[in-house]
Amino acid sequence: MIRVMTVDDIRQLIYKVTLKKFFEQLLSQLERDFSRWHEFNTVPRISTHFPQGVIELMPISDHEYYAFKCVNGYPENRSINKRTVVAMGALADVKSGYPVLLSEMTILTALRTAATSALASKHLACLSPGRAPIFGIIGTGSQSEFQALAHYFLLGVREIYYFDIDPLAMDKFKKNLSAFDCTLHACPNVQAVVEHSTMVTTARAAAASVEVIRYDDVKPGLHINAIGGDAPGKTELDSVFLGNSKIVVEYRPQLAGQSDRVENSVYAELWELVSGKKPGRVSAEEITLFDSVGFALEDYSVLRYVYQLAENFHVGHMLDMLPDSHDTTDLYAHIQCR
Amino acid sequence: MIRVMTVDDIRQLIYKVTLKKFFEQLLSQLERDFSRWHEFNTVPRISTHFPQGVIELMPISDHEYYAFKCVNGYPENRSINKRTVVAMGALADVKSGYPVLLSEMTILTALRTAATSALASKHLACLSPGRAPIFGIIGTGSQSEFQALAHYFLLGVREIYYFDIDPLAMDKFKKNLSAFDCTLHACPNVQAVVEHSTMVTTARAAAASVEVIRYDDVKPGLHINAIGGDAPGKTELDSVFLGNSKIVVEYRPQLAGQSDRVENSVYAELWELVSGKKPGRVSAEEITLFDSVGFALEDYSVLRYVYQLAENFHVGHMLDMLPDSHDTTDLYAHIQCR
Repeated sequence: MIRVMTVDDIRQLIYKVTLKKFFEQLLSQLERDFSRWHEFNTVPRISTHFPQGVIELMPISDHEYYAFKCVNGYPENRSINKRTVVAMGALADVKSGYPVLLSEMTILTALRTAATSALASKHLACLSPGRAPIFGIIGTGSQSEFQALAHYFLLGVREIYYFDIDPLAMDKFKKNLSAFDCTLHACPNVQAVVEHSTMVTTARAAAASVEVIRYDDVKPGLHINAIGGDAPGKTELDSVFLGNSKIVVEYRPQLAGQSDRVENSVYAELWELVSGKKPGRVSAEEITLFDSVGFALEDYSVLRYVYQLAENFHVGHMLDMLPDSHDTTDLYAHIQCR
Repeated sequence: MIRVMTVDDIRQLIYKVTLKKFFEQLLSQLERDFSRWHEFNTVPRISTHFPQGVIELMPISDHEYYAFKCVNGYPENRSINKRTVVAMGALADVKSGYPVLLSEMTILTALRTAATSALASKHLACLSPGRAPIFGIIGTGSQSEFQALAHYFLLGVREIYYFDIDPLAMDKFKKNLSAFDCTLHACPNVQAVVEHSTMVTTARAAAASVEVIRYDDVKPGLHINAIGGDAPGKTELDSVFLGNSKIVVEYRPQLAGQSDRVENSVYAELWELVSGKKPGRVSAEEITLFDSVGFALEDYSVLRYVYQLAENFHVGHMLDMLPDSHDTTDLYAHIQCR
């Protein structure tokens, strides 16, 4: 029997543990895992390209667990009333190689991406004690509430500026966040979000649908989490940022195929900041940029955390996805019939 | 909602369709898919090695479906009362990138490996009309009944010679096959199996536990399916076979790391025989060898076949592994809670 987590199981789990605690504990798990980066066996994702989009496998392991996620990125899926990104994943015990958890990961991906953004903001945003953190979000699609709430719960954000070219998406964002104790400012454009925020997440879903942040609009001291797009080098940001901001990525090998100029502009991998190997922000004036495409380590962290949580709270479906082992040489017994 | 197939669901499905029909239809699916080899996007498996064993991801796709399997190979797992190989896999619709089937694959792997062996035997074994096909099996572990029954149902085998160094494994094999209309001959050693059979499968589980077939023991005309071991170049066979037999593999890139001598000894990939590009057996004297390590195309075939079958017979668990799409921009609604 292994534990299978559906969308509703994840919802139940969050309800039991509270979203606040979920984000806090997930952040701790991410910090523990990013701090021991060299204990992981890391490889770039394995991408299969189709005319309609991409399907990717993202495996990673340490000496305790092997994790993988299968995720698609289909920019035009909305035209067939489907999501642009859905995902499933699993966690296996390295001792036996047996899977121990199988989970929906569309929602877990949004949660871990948001917690990772907040982790980057923690190291890169200007968080001086006398100054309230103000969060901005550009693109209020699927990821937006998760990004906003991670910053709300983890960095004490109580003021949020938001913009999307789709007014319905802005209404949805406002409705979903209205239950929380924070002030929401609808903005008429990207510039207004950037002007008022100390940290901004850009979360563009499809290639041509949202304006980009222009370097000229950015004040000194801003931190940007660029999570939109699916492949490294997405053109979500003005290329002037290269060379004019402190750029942090998750995993340099995922830059493969980028120009030398892009590769040379990268200051650090996120784990170097988390482990203290390199400083994050060093002045109030720096412009900082976390250029995030997602990395398997984040999936490992959220799967490992959810696995432990689901065991503790007895949430999930126990299914016989593996033949039991009453006699390990007798597999045929499981289908005995003529 | 997607369809999730447990071990018991697979058992039910086979019960409904009968094992005979399952093997027949799976063989047809394999023949269709191997015949259109160049429509597939093929890559070598992605292996992660641990001190205890290996965990592998095996993706493949054509323009309709993307399939992947996650499988472990842990030779020492029996010492912790676990199987040496367990697997799970999924099928996704290329149109949307959405998964449509998630399945146990420990049993499906045994079934597809057996059907693939029978497919190789069909092209490589000496099947002259006047001569009864006689099947031999060396190593009566988890895979053995599946191998024997694929040859029973697909090639009309009614006589089986078998040997294992473990007498209990031999008893288990006999018991499991006693319900079928065939004559079973327990053999005292490898040589006796080879002497009496026209086609032999060697299915060695762990490295040092079974004797190998020696070239000197082999009569002209024998066909061998070597399915044991997990990586190419397993030492299941006397190396004298290289250069002295017609060797067929599934996928040459999976020979990477082998000596030039091994690579140069390979006559064809299986698809070349199935599609008629190269002849299989051309004389009654040839010694032929299908050196099989398994390939993702076989997983694609069995997943695609099982998906269709499960839909038709309404077998499986429908689980919400993907957020539904009432509003594709509103993912947060699925976890709405504080």
